[in-house]
Order: sequence, then C-alpha cells, then structure tokens
Amino acid sequence: MSQSAYSKLENRYNRLGLLGEAGDVLHWDSAAIMPAGAAKARGEQIAELKAISHNLIIAPDTSDLIDAASQQSDLNQWQQSNLNLIRHHWTRATAIPEDLVVALSKACSECEAVWRDARAKNDFKRVLPYMETVLELIKQSGTAVAEKLNLPLYDALLGEFEPGARSAEIDPVFDDLTDWFPNFLDDVLAAQDARPAIRIPKGPFAIDVQRELGIKFMDALGFDFNYGRLDISLHPFCGGTPDDVRITTRYDEDDFTSALMGVLHETGHAMYERGLPIDYRRQPVGNALGMSMHESQSLLVEMQVCRSSEFLEYAAPLAKKAFNGTGSAWGADNLYRLYTKVERGFIRVDADEVTYPAHVILRYQLEKALINGEMKLADLPQAWNKKMQDMLGITPPTDTLGCMQDIHWYDGAWGYFPTYTLGAMTAAQIFQAASQAKPAINAGIPKGDFKPLMAWLRSNIHSSGSLMPASELLTKTTGHTLDPSVFKDHLKRRYLP
Amino acid sequence: MSQSAYSKLENRYNRLGLLGEAGDVLHWDSAAIMPAGAAKARGEQIAELKAISHNLIIAPDTSDLIDAASQQSDLNQWQQSNLNLIRHHWTRATAIPEDLVVALSKACSECEAVWRDARAKNDFKRVLPYMETVLELIKQSGTAVAEKLNLPLYDALLGEFEPGARSAEIDPVFDDLTDWFPNFLDDVLAAQDARPAIRIPKGPFAIDVQRELGIKFMDALGFDFNYGRLDISLHPFCGGTPDDVRITTRYDEDDFTSALMGVLHETGHAMYERGLPIDYRRQPVGNALGMSMHESQSLLVEMQVCRSSEFLEYAAPLAKKAFNGTGSAWGADNLYRLYTKVERGFIRVDADEVTYPAHVILRYQLEKALINGEMKLADLPQAWNKKMQDMLGITPPTDTLGCMQDIHWYDGAWGYFPTYTLGAMTAAQIFQAASQAKPAINAGIPKGDFKPLMAWLRSNIHSSGSLMPASELLTKTTGHTLDPSVFKDHLKRRYLP
Repeated sequence: MSQSAYSKLENRYNRLGLLGEAGDVLHWDSAAIMPAGAAKARGEQIAELKAISHNLIIAPDTSDLIDAASQQSDLNQWQQSNLNLIRHHWTRATAIPEDLVVALSKACSECEAVWRDARAKNDFKRVLPYMETVLELIKQSGTAVAEKLNLPLYDALLGEFEPGARSAEIDPVFDDLTDWFPNFLDDVLAAQDARPAIRIPKGPFAIDVQRELGIKFMDALGFDFNYGRLDISLHPFCGGTPDDVRITTRYDEDDFTSALMGVLHETGHAMYERGLPIDYRRQPVGNALGMSMHESQSLLVEMQVCRSSEFLEYAAPLAKKAFNGTGSAWGADNLYRLYTKVERGFIRVDADEVTYPAHVILRYQLEKALINGEMKLADLPQAWNKKMQDMLGITPPTDTLGCMQDIHWYDGAWGYFPTYTLGAMTAAQIFQAASQAKPAINAGIPKGDFKPLMAWLRSNIHSSGSLMPASELLTKTTGHTLDPSVFKDHLKRRYLP
Repeated sequence: MSQSAYSKLENRYNRLGLLGEAGDVLHWDSAAIMPAGAAKARGEQIAELKAISHNLIIAPDTSDLIDAASQQSDLNQWQQSNLNLIRHHWTRATAIPEDLVVALSKACSECEAVWRDARAKNDFKRVLPYMETVLELIKQSGTAVAEKLNLPLYDALLGEFEPGARSAEIDPVFDDLTDWFPNFLDDVLAAQDARPAIRIPKGPFAIDVQRELGIKFMDALGFDFNYGRLDISLHPFCGGTPDDVRITTRYDEDDFTSALMGVLHETGHAMYERGLPIDYRRQPVGNALGMSMHESQSLLVEMQVCRSSEFLEYAAPLAKKAFNGTGSAWGADNLYRLYTKVERGFIRVDADEVTYPAHVILRYQLEKALINGEMKLADLPQAWNKKMQDMLGITPPTDTLGCMQDIHWYDGAWGYFPTYTLGAMTAAQIFQAASQAKPAINAGIPKGDFKPLMAWLRSNIHSSGSLMPASELLTKTTGHTLDPSVFKDHLKRRYLP
C-alpha cells in the first residue's frame, strides 16, 4: 500500500523533529558548557541544521502534500490538528528566504557570544553592532512573514512564540496593569512594612548543598533524572528535548533562595515537556503550545505553588537541615515572607511576582518601539533607564543591571517578552481551576506531595500537546477565557493585609 | 562568474563538515553526560544526521562534479588532494545503501547503551543479541564496500579507519611481534625484578586535585581551554571538533597515575586536532589522517614523552606537591619505575607499552575471525580468555575484565584495533626523527617546556592534514617507511638493563 500524503508529511516532520532535537542539544551545549572559542563554528553548525530543516519544510512537494492530505477522510482529531499546524508552519517558513534564515542564525550565535563578554564587562557599545545586525535581520524576516499573513510587523514576530496573539489585544491588558500597578505596589510595600522584619538566613551556602536540595525538590515534583539533567548556566533555562530535558540554574554562595526557586521554576517547564503526548513525539501537534502556556507551567510551580506558605511549611525544615541552619530565620513563616518579599529591583529574573509585570511591560514597549523603528538601538540604555525610573522608581547604575541583563534580544528572541506576563495570568487561572477541581492538590502541598497536582496538569494540560490552541485549552480546563482579574485577585490575596 | 565544479564540491563538503561536527558533539554528549533514558532518541538523531550526510555525499550530481573538477587546471596541490579524497569518499559511500547506514547507526547507539549496563553487571549474554545485530550490519556494509573496491572484507572495514592499509601487510608485522614478544616480556620482567621495588604513593587522591593536576600538564603541553574541555566518561576518549576538542578521563581515588596518564594521552590526540590546517577546515584534506597517525600523536605524548624519566623529573615534584605527598614514593626515579612498570594485566587501556601490543593483536585476530565467519560471537568470551592465556599467561575472571572492557565493537568500530599498535610504532619513529632534528625537544622535557616538540609536530605532522597519505608523510618526516625495529629498539632501551 502506498503511503498517504498525510503519512509522508508525518515522516518528514519526524525527520524535522530529529534535526530540531539535535539543534536543541547543540544550543543547550552552547549555553551551558561550550568553550568560548567554539562559538563561531557552533553558530555555523546550528545554522546548517536550520537551513536543512528550512529546506525540508519548504520542499517543492509540501504544498501539494498538504492539499492532498486535506482531502483525506481517515484523519483523526490529532492528525487533523497536526495537518493544520503543518500548514501554518509551512506558510510562515515559505515567507522567509533561506539565506536570511542562515544569516539570522549566525548573527544570533555571534551576538550571544559577544553579549556574554560585554555583559560581564558592562560594555554595551561592544555588543551594539552585533545587536544591530540581529535586529535588522529580525525585522527583515518579520516583514516577510507579516506580508504573507497580513499582520503588523510586531505581531508577525510575536506569533513565532505565541501563535495567534495580537499586540492590539495585549496593549489594553498591559495598559490596565500599568495603571493599576503603582498604587497596588505602594499598598503592597506598606503592608509588607507592617509585618515582622524578614530575617535573612546566614551563608555561605555551599553550591553542592544548594544543588542537592534543588534535586530533592525536583524529585518531589516528579522530575526523572533518567530523562534529564540539572546544570549551571549564566542565564537559567530549560532546554534539551522531551526525552532529555535539561534545566540550568546559577548559584550564589551568599543566597540560596534565588537558585533554588530558579530550579523549581525550570522544573515546571521541564514537567510540561516530559508530559507531552509521546504518541505524537516530533509532530507539531505533539509539541508544547506557545510560550505563554509554557511559562504558565513554570510560574504555576514557582509562583502559585512554591512561593506559597503551604509549600514553605514543607520546604523550610528541609532547607534548614540541608544548610545546618539555626534560629528563627529558618522558620516557614519567615521564609514565606522572604520568598514573597516585594521590592523595586533591577533584575527581571530576580524580580518578585508583583513587580515582574513591570519588567515585562517595559521590555514589551521598548521592543515594539525598536521593531517599529520609533527608536534606535543606540538609545536603548537611556530609554531603558528612563522607563525603569518611571515604572519602578529606580535607575540601573550599569547596563549590566539594565538592558544587557537578559539574553533574549541578543539571541534573536524579539516578541518573546510579553509571554511572561501572559503566562503569569494563565498560571493563576489554571491553578485556581485545578485547586477547585481536586482538593488533594492543595492538601498535598504542605506534605510535599505534588502527585495530585502533577497528575492533574499532565492529564489536563501537558498531554494535550498542541491539539487545540492555548486559548481553547484554557477555556476547556478553566471554564473561561483569559481573565486578568484572577491574577490580580491572587496578588491581592497574597500581598495585601 | 559561475562556481567551478571544485568549488561546488568544496561548499558541499563544508556543509558535510558542519553536519559531522554536530554529530560529533552529540556523540560526545552521549558518552559523557547524556541521561540514559535519552539513548533511543539520541540514536535516532545521530542516524538522521548520518542519513542526511550520506545523501549529500551520494547526491546525483556528485559523480559529474568530480569528473568536471578533475578537468580543472586551476587546482593547487591541496585542492588536488582534496578532490582525490572526495572521490574515494564518494566511492565508499555509494557502496552502502542509505537504509543500511541508518540501521547500523541505530543498532550501534542501542548496543552501546546496553553495553554500558551489561558491562557493569558482567552480563555478556544481555548484550550479545545487540552485538550480533551490529556485527551482521557491519558485515553487510563491509561486504558492499569490499565488492566495490575489490578488497577482502576485513580490509574494507579496516580502510574506514586506516585508508590504504591491508591486513596482508599487517599480519607479518603482528606475527613478528607475537613471536618476539614472549621472550622479550620474560626478559623485561626479569630486569624489572632486579630493580629496587616500586613504592606506591598513598591515596586517597581527591578527584578535583587529580583534575587540576591534569589541567596543569594539559596547559604545559599547549592545550587551550578556550577551544576545548576536560570531562569524565566511562571510556576515555578525545571527541568534539577541531575548534572544540573535548577529552575525557575516568578517575580512581586510590590511584592517580592512570587518569593522569590518560589525560596526557588524550591531550596528544587533541593537539593533533587543534593543529590541523584551518584553511581547509571541514574539507577531507584538512582532516586528520587515519587512526594510526592519530594514535601516534597520543602515544608520542604518552609513551615517548610522558613516561620517560626526563618527563618525570619535571612532573614528580608537581604531583608530590599537589597531593601533599611525602617520602621516597614521590621521587622521580620511583615514579618512572611506576610509570614503566610492566605486568600481565587484563585491561587494555591500563596496559603498559610492552604488553599493549599483545592486547591489540588478540583483538585483531578475534575480529578478523568474527568478520570472516570463522567464529561465532557467542563463543567470544571463551575465545578471548583462551587467547589471553596463550599470549599473556592470564585468564580474566569476568567478561567485564575480558571481552566487554572496550566500547569499540559494541559501538560499531570493527577493523579499528590494529591501528593502536601501528600507531605505537609510528610514534616511536616520529619521535626519534623529531629528537634528532631538534635537540631543544629533548632538552625541554625535564623543564616542562614542550613548545619545541609541539612546534615541530605542528609544522611536520598536524598542519599537513590529509595532504598526503600517512605512509608518505611518515617517509617525508622520518626518511623511511614504517620500521617496527625502531619501536622494538625503543622498548629494549627503556625496559632491558
């Protein structure tokens, strides 16, 4: 029996998936362990893999195969959805010429390597020309997609990370948060001042002990080290592949709290990847949804679960024991106050959940202006610092603590940032629904039993892959579309008296 | 101006080189740090890269491009040599059908993963069926090449690692060594017994101190950590790419000597990779020569240089200091006797340079018999043990210490083993020529100055890439073809009174 058009596409996407996995491992390696001198060659290796993938996607027969598969009456719901995703994928890919794909990939690798150095040396001017090249190529490829899909340029870029999202819909939500935020932050800080002073556990905290404690919590959350790793990198991330999920963190010997919560955050991402439907491995329908759903899974673990007083009831004694801690600084109440401490800070990845949206909105507004040509990259440090002052009332003393802190723009991720705060809102909404659906979830947390939560997430979110769009999955599992008031209510409950 | 046929081939081989590098990084990752659960997916990723490379090599226009490039009068000596290598490459590749390439790659990855487990558990039967599959597919692909090149089956496989080598030429050399060996070994052991007893430095030796000492010597030898790494793996190897050379070792807290010398050995490989001509990066002519030349570079560093009394004059005080050693066990004389200690042992990678050829010849004879169908794989443990008894007078108590000790056969490297001893002979001959040509080489060793040696090797061996065959390069640099008597003389000088 000859292969159906759909089967041919599926086989092709299996190959694409394997190439993507190879690239993911190379990318993890670059960020976690590669010697600096290899950056140029690595950039070329990854670019070659991308070029081959690009050619496979836009192969001359793809269009006909998609049309023929559309006529097949034997496709199940998953296959139908897969075919739709393949069509969308093809439409985006055919918009961008191969030489642009290769040039962008190389530019990103080079810029990322220079950024690592420039960031350490607080030398924005050194990385500026590399970043200009990246942005120029990002705009070229975004324009190509925008024309094909009849979208505004920014939305064409945003769609790479968050299919179907529109800045016109994000703007009012973010504007609403921006308006609400200053007064709320004042109230939160006032309430915080009225509570007992936070006591800081005394270090140093040996890195291997921090690592072991992180692993203990990863184990409790269900992370399987037979299918993943925990390593160190400058910018913590979750990489690798669904069968080999690799999370990274960075340790500070004077403060264990940040690396530990970072590990828990990335574990949320990792559990999503591990829970994806194995029957559709390497097919678009078997992949995770857009970045806001991915971030919702990390933020659900970190913000909704692990920064709760219930989680710290379980975690505080373990941390105290691991570090041989003594005194009231190690009490669950104090650690809860520490882990929900709010302050006006410079660094997004260290920000609390109250101020985090401000960091995101700042980046969202700046990247829109840069992409739309309303601002020059050379003016980024000044513009960044001004917005920080406007929104959080503080000015970064260095660009290392300002516009060079994040890898994203330097590595070509433009249109990515809004997904963090969309993810935070989604997390609040999903966790509320899960808690209501299954009381064992909340009951388990103080005992360190996360099985009910993870089972619910696996069956309601993870195993769904990309069968339906994020908005549809959210409505299906929570009963309503994205509702920012759930997020606001969560913040009010946790942070106001 | 349109691209010449040769330029087209060069571009294609640049892409092939990038795909090969990607595969090399994945392979290093599998052996050094990959979680076990990812083995199957990794096997498929590597197989996909190999299939794409295979298709690029055998592309329908390759034959015409090679013919057209052969007519070009504008090729320099390097390009001419490159074209010859491309033609040879193409001839070998077109002999093997793609599905066989893919099947073999998968079978090797699976077998390697099972071997890791079976070796730990001394369970040869568990790995046997996987190994049978590997051998069967190796024979199929070897037969395909043998028919195309009109070679005996074994030579077709050998040629993958050592282009142009013939078992008919190896047999008499190895038979000669086999005859000479037993009496020589008796003499060596008698001479050893007449020397002062060897004192063993007392451990434990902390792994991080062992690692730091290894790095100190790697630095002294010229290894640049901006372009490479040192890690841990079960079977030490040198992997990665010329711009990112990664060596591995395995540490034993009770004995620092083995890991340290292993690091020096792999550093010899690494320096060869780093010294390859950068102008021909990713072209066949820019690659290292066959495995015997590669092994000659590691053995030159390890056996000719680092196990010499001159090297230990430099190294002993550093080791003593690093481990806070006390007493005469740490004297250069004693460490020299330790590092040139000869004994009848089970493990090839731990073997001394006197008994090493016996380990190699045993494997060479067994793999020839297995490939030629004169022996069954199920009988391997018995046959192995019998030969060990015949040649070294000892019988391994377990298969872990016997036929499961090396990764090679399980990972598909059949026809590889003889290159070790060919390499040892080549190393002796090259080092003799280098020492005679440049007295600063020997003068530098006791002072830890390896710059004269490495400069000579780089300009005489490394930078030559694959411009000429190994035999021609050897004759050019040493004045004569491979002469095993140089190796024998070296052994006699070092080990007899």
